[in-house]
Amino acid sequence: MRHVQATIAAIRPTDAAIHQASLQRLADQARPQGSLGVLESVSARLAAIAGTLDVRLEKKVIVTCAGDHGVVEEGVSLFPQEVTPQMVFNFIGGGASVSVLAAHAGAEVRVADLGVNYDFEPELPIFHKKIGKGTANFAQEPAMSREDAIRSIRAGIEIVDNLVQRGAIDLLGTGDMGIGNTTASTAVIAAFSGIAVSELTGRGTGIDDAMLAHKINVIDKALALHRPDPDDPLDILAKVGGFEIGGLAGLVIGAAAHGIPVVCDGLISTAGALIGCELAPMAKAYLFASHNSVEVGHKYILDRLGLAPLLDLQFRLGEGTGAAMAMHLLDAATRVLADIKTFAEVGINNAQEGRC
Amino acid sequence: MRHVQATIAAIRPTDAAIHQASLQRLADQARPQGSLGVLESVSARLAAIAGTLDVRLEKKVIVTCAGDHGVVEEGVSLFPQEVTPQMVFNFIGGGASVSVLAAHAGAEVRVADLGVNYDFEPELPIFHKKIGKGTANFAQEPAMSREDAIRSIRAGIEIVDNLVQRGAIDLLGTGDMGIGNTTASTAVIAAFSGIAVSELTGRGTGIDDAMLAHKINVIDKALALHRPDPDDPLDILAKVGGFEIGGLAGLVIGAAAHGIPVVCDGLISTAGALIGCELAPMAKAYLFASHNSVEVGHKYILDRLGLAPLLDLQFRLGEGTGAAMAMHLLDAATRVLADIKTFAEVGINNAQEGRC
Repeated sequence: MRHVQATIAAIRPTDAAIHQASLQRLADQARPQGSLGVLESVSARLAAIAGTLDVRLEKKVIVTCAGDHGVVEEGVSLFPQEVTPQMVFNFIGGGASVSVLAAHAGAEVRVADLGVNYDFEPELPIFHKKIGKGTANFAQEPAMSREDAIRSIRAGIEIVDNLVQRGAIDLLGTGDMGIGNTTASTAVIAAFSGIAVSELTGRGTGIDDAMLAHKINVIDKALALHRPDPDDPLDILAKVGGFEIGGLAGLVIGAAAHGIPVVCDGLISTAGALIGCELAPMAKAYLFASHNSVEVGHKYILDRLGLAPLLDLQFRLGEGTGAAMAMHLLDAATRVLADIKTFAEVGINNAQEGRC
Repeated sequence: MRHVQATIAAIRPTDAAIHQASLQRLADQARPQGSLGVLESVSARLAAIAGTLDVRLEKKVIVTCAGDHGVVEEGVSLFPQEVTPQMVFNFIGGGASVSVLAAHAGAEVRVADLGVNYDFEPELPIFHKKIGKGTANFAQEPAMSREDAIRSIRAGIEIVDNLVQRGAIDLLGTGDMGIGNTTASTAVIAAFSGIAVSELTGRGTGIDDAMLAHKINVIDKALALHRPDPDDPLDILAKVGGFEIGGLAGLVIGAAAHGIPVVCDGLISTAGALIGCELAPMAKAYLFASHNSVEVGHKYILDRLGLAPLLDLQFRLGEGTGAAMAMHLLDAATRVLADIKTFAEVGINNAQEGRC
């Protein structure tokens, strides 16, 4: 836990003076006040992170964390576990959804194996951070030990450290792959929130009514069995989480410690981000929510994190696809702040005091 | 009206076979079915327009139609009319909101003067299509003659003709500038829909309660005075519309006639698109809605046109800013269809018959 604690301690507040100057410039621009909606607050936050009004998000990386889940033994997903490593190869091959959307966003996709039930060749160009070959079936026993929960978070931090060592990163996106991981994420959210599992549980990749009821039942029983402490994020991660969820928490902590803005994808990534921000509340200042997932528990996390999603494209895919789509908007926000001229700069009549 | 009618007659249906093949490919891709939400239907529509599954939206142009409104004499806007030509110069100078967001989208902005109350130099690099120096005050008399309504639509068509003559366009965006044009657009929507003006009227660029009540009263009285025929789009445009609104209608008709997809901006652009699609229903197949405006009447038009907006960024600006933001999503949709591999192409287990 020492490395994790040191990283959390390294997170600095963002620049309040730059934030204020950004809001002032936005208000002075030759357009009705507030007329660029959510891009305005986003641009001011990005400026505060970067410490400048002219932010350049040039180098973008999406880290897609993969892991398997023992709970799939309970029959909670339609896809077999073999799909997790197959999709890892698909990400590397460039034909997966996140590969295509990241390329379109000008972002690099890096896959991280946090716990896939498959032996990848060491030379495969992924982050080799396997904590175990899938979690234990949390319907029967804790998903992982507390030590492994910490190791998974540390692995996420180390990925960011490694990326930064290779060169500056301006924007980090997070994504996930792992058959069964909506079940784990929903259990994590239920554990934090105390909200009834039946209210939180969605259809993942598309299960039917009977399977949905079964999925709810599996999560309910696991929570009753393990009683994770709602005030102890590591206890929740260990008992009903996943290796890649811990990795996703570590990515957020690591990015914040390096002063890098981080945009999280859908349900699984935000569940990871929630764990990260519960451990490191100051990381919230660096975090952006890409999109509104159709998964039910997602809104709870965003409300808890105080984040408004940028997009609502009805995605239910993961991988980092929502994060990839949001990157263009974050880029646009930086241009809004820096490049739109003020009334004074272009010599246009400003309607009234309120510029409204 | 002959040129307008000939253009309407030139609009062809989009390619139904390509549309079907697109839906099939989307369903076969190595991801849960339907998991890329609204991008999927958008990509299939773009493919049907282009007649290929590998659509390339390379050349993008946003045409921002500017015009003034006599009804500003009634005190319905906070900005003085001089702002319209000042903003035209700002668009050309590249410092306006649409300039910045279009540059970010890789789109060219072209300004069209349909009816600005200002004498632009003939060598100014804009489309010189002035029908008049602002409409008449429709609180007192019809905004324009029926002949000028037709001329304004024809002007929009000619702009597309001219752009196409200069080289192929893959995607057209529409935008507006004109002090008072939310008042005209709201009157247009009320005339089409019969919905109470008080329900439709928003705050434009930011007016207060008293001014909002006044704006509603002005529109109500104008509709009572002119009684525009809800089944005659030209009558509505002439009596309570605007020159740039007619131009925006013409852009949609012209783009459809040339087989070019067209993405419309917020309230004013969609009011123009509605007039265009009422005159030329087949143009709807070429039309995309960029974003959800905060202006109240916008949803009515989108429902009537059967369009779902791609973005909800709380913009209330116009100029083509929403259209610019949506272009990245339309591009992404083309890559989704063409580049994401199918289960068969990557040799991944497909869960079930339903691939769900």
